[in-house]
Amino acid sequence: MDAPFRGNLLAPPAATGSEEVVQTIDQSSHTRIERIVSNGQCSPPGFWYDQDEHEWVTVIAGQAKIRFDDHGDESIIHLRPGDHLTIEAHRRHRVEWTDTEEPTIWIAVFYDNRPDKI
Amino acid sequence: MDAPFRGNLLAPPAATGSEEVVQTIDQSSHTRIERIVSNGQCSPPGFWYDQDEHEWVTVIAGQAKIRFDDHGDESIIHLRPGDHLTIEAHRRHRVEWTDTEEPTIWIAVFYDNRPDKI
Repeated sequence: MDAPFRGNLLAPPAATGSEEVVQTIDQSSHTRIERIVSNGQCSPPGFWYDQDEHEWVTVIAGQAKIRFDDHGDESIIHLRPGDHLTIEAHRRHRVEWTDTEEPTIWIAVFYDNRPDKI
Repeated sequence: MDAPFRGNLLAPPAATGSEEVVQTIDQSSHTRIERIVSNGQCSPPGFWYDQDEHEWVTVIAGQAKIRFDDHGDESIIHLRPGDHLTIEAHRRHRVEWTDTEEPTIWIAVFYDNRPDKI
């Protein structure tokens, strides 16, 4: 059987320049694991994510700010390496800012909460 | 609504000394996300994990070695920060070694592959 080693999350994607890169690392019926590498990208003006799935997200390099569609400045969360949070399905949010000095590397796990239908 | 910030994966768990700490960060019907902090622990002699779920795992601090029940030395994978791999359900494996100099911090996502039963 081949060695199962799959690579390093911190290694920059090859030849991508300054684009944002989204890679699906693993996925199954109810779960999707992504690595996202941002290079200063943020969500377009006025854009809000409104997802059917829950999302658990962490930043392992760089920095980012996520804004929630709540009230006031306190709804911006500044994520530094190791910071993590869960964004429940349909909680509106956007990426307000990512680091422009170095790549920001995210791990995001999308999962749903549907019970088994028996 | 409360701020959704959940903490920092790299921050050592409070007052745990040198025990191994397993924390469930998030879970749903088909998905479980764990943070594991090892301090030199490894699997007991002769012990093999044989899991019903797939596991995606990464090390974000420290180092670890996972042995697979395959053939030869090449079945040991040395994980350094950012290294990640997927361990398919029922692929027998064990934690052969974790760093004794600093805590090893793992993120593990367990997920199943059962289709919806409609």
